[in-house]
Amino acid sequence: MTSRPPKPGALILAGGRGERFWPWSTPARPKQLLPLARDGRTLLAATFARSLRFTTADRVVVMTAESLVEACRRECPGAIVVGEPVMRNTAPAIAAAAAFFEDDAAFAVLPSDHAIDDEDAFAADLARAIGIASREAVLVTFGILPTAPETSFGYVRRGAALAERLHRVAQFTEKPDLERATAWVASGEYAWNSGMFVWTRRAFLAALEAGRPAIAAALKALRFAPGQERAFEQALRDVFPALEAVSVDYAVLEGAPNVVVIDASFDWDDMGSWGAWARRQPRDAQGNVTWGDAIAVECEGCIVVGDGVLAAPLRLKDMVVVATPRGVLACRIEDSEQVRKVSEAVRAWSHR
Amino acid sequence: MTSRPPKPGALILAGGRGERFWPWSTPARPKQLLPLARDGRTLLAATFARSLRFTTADRVVVMTAESLVEACRRECPGAIVVGEPVMRNTAPAIAAAAAFFEDDAAFAVLPSDHAIDDEDAFAADLARAIGIASREAVLVTFGILPTAPETSFGYVRRGAALAERLHRVAQFTEKPDLERATAWVASGEYAWNSGMFVWTRRAFLAALEAGRPAIAAALKALRFAPGQERAFEQALRDVFPALEAVSVDYAVLEGAPNVVVIDASFDWDDMGSWGAWARRQPRDAQGNVTWGDAIAVECEGCIVVGDGVLAAPLRLKDMVVVATPRGVLACRIEDSEQVRKVSEAVRAWSHR
Repeated sequence: MTSRPPKPGALILAGGRGERFWPWSTPARPKQLLPLARDGRTLLAATFARSLRFTTADRVVVMTAESLVEACRRECPGAIVVGEPVMRNTAPAIAAAAAFFEDDAAFAVLPSDHAIDDEDAFAADLARAIGIASREAVLVTFGILPTAPETSFGYVRRGAALAERLHRVAQFTEKPDLERATAWVASGEYAWNSGMFVWTRRAFLAALEAGRPAIAAALKALRFAPGQERAFEQALRDVFPALEAVSVDYAVLEGAPNVVVIDASFDWDDMGSWGAWARRQPRDAQGNVTWGDAIAVECEGCIVVGDGVLAAPLRLKDMVVVATPRGVLACRIEDSEQVRKVSEAVRAWSHR
Repeated sequence: MTSRPPKPGALILAGGRGERFWPWSTPARPKQLLPLARDGRTLLAATFARSLRFTTADRVVVMTAESLVEACRRECPGAIVVGEPVMRNTAPAIAAAAAFFEDDAAFAVLPSDHAIDDEDAFAADLARAIGIASREAVLVTFGILPTAPETSFGYVRRGAALAERLHRVAQFTEKPDLERATAWVASGEYAWNSGMFVWTRRAFLAALEAGRPAIAAALKALRFAPGQERAFEQALRDVFPALEAVSVDYAVLEGAPNVVVIDASFDWDDMGSWGAWARRQPRDAQGNVTWGDAIAVECEGCIVVGDGVLAAPLRLKDMVVVATPRGVLACRIEDSEQVRKVSEAVRAWSHR
């Protein structure tokens, strides 16, 4: 008699600070809690909705900062929301959340700040990945067909073909410079690393044991069930602060021999800037994207956002203007990847 | 026995709306009430201080909108502040204020939104003009040596020379196009019309009688003294609404045969735009002018103003960014003459 595998689950990583969306984003409302999805939902709510295409709310764990637990709970009704006592990057967060799932349960790891509009294709790819991860002791990732030599993404080099749109991973890479990104995209061997993964708890912990035995040792004995989130957070307070802050890509995936990559059939963006957000928004006849209290006077191709303060640029082209009571950003769209510089300058200015 | 002429006086015109300084300027705080003078005073306070170089506060009449009387009184302590029941441009305002002065008193007409930093030169030129106006039945104006073919100023063409830096006026002109402005500046015969005048009440009323007899007839019988401002305003309510709204340049000066022009020895600007303001402000090492809550991150040559909201532009060049709780402006400095378009768009948006 063969036992039926446990239902799949989802782990949503919602601890990011999202400083590149200053001044809209704040510590109390980072990127994943802003209404940046195409339909006006928050990115976190949209991620949660996508997870409900392959599991149920009671099998969705949201890992976030303690200060964001209540906000995340509102966006993900019925989910298990856990506050991390200190932020230790993705490897410890995933290892902690794994305590919720059965050893043989496949769960998807989903960043909460990505944009994906084709939910049907997403659901089909996820179902396939869950099937693969449930049958074989592999770590499944999703590669995005590159449409440009992006230097703000990591890449995956495909190895041996295993099936249609499925390869072994030959190599994970860090963010490249433009020259290498251009060569990689031209080669056809590389895909963008989407940062989404599917695996069973057993396969993940085995790989973590190999890559970061200290993190695995600190967390593998933990378990928790619905209703025990607060007790679980208390347990995390004892062990989390001492853990190495490290990404799952670096700690686990780069060294693991059993990683496979599915060529994603869905659209994807990591929404890393105002420019990335605007690419998915409707535009007016002059190519402007406006949101809230915003008037684009004789502007072309601009992004104009007013949230509590009226933004009214005049005769600008390809610029971002974002007005809030906390501050005002103005820059060229092509510089919107550098907005973190502004939030850093503002922090220094506030403490002057 | 010759009688000593009455003490000179000053009439400050403070009724402007100053929409080109949106969003800093508002109906309740137009340009003349903003701290735009180089030393951080309001333009009106600076104008009042200059008037005290040739007269005393009790001989200074400030004409403004009724809604601005209290604000103007704070900026001009001891002055006579009169609220106009409706705005009718400069000819009726000057004719009304003339009711304060004796027939033989020379008084200077000073717009409240001009920038003049060399107060000593100003005082010397004013003293000379007051002497001329007191001795002869002429209308004295001040011509500014043009430094560029400005198209936002009116011009004066000099006629016959009367003395050093003193000519008859051959012609007043409206704002020219760039081609004519360039030719005029090259000719050496033209000066910018500063909009400042010195004359006696008698000479002014004679010229007004010739140019706009209806305005002269409506106002020439009025008189008022210190302490009678409110009764005088009541009298204005009966006659002002029916008067033609017309500038003194058009109604009086363009047709008058007895206008003379002094080549001003002081600096002057009508502060018509953010760009004009910034030309008189200190700059940082990157050429930025910042005021208030403002951080220019990797910017060059920008104007950054934050009044109640932090303005933090990133990597901009030669741009204006002004942040207030009422709204946010962003434009190129070269477009700052067109900011009125924004305040008009905002008005339409507010009433949508």
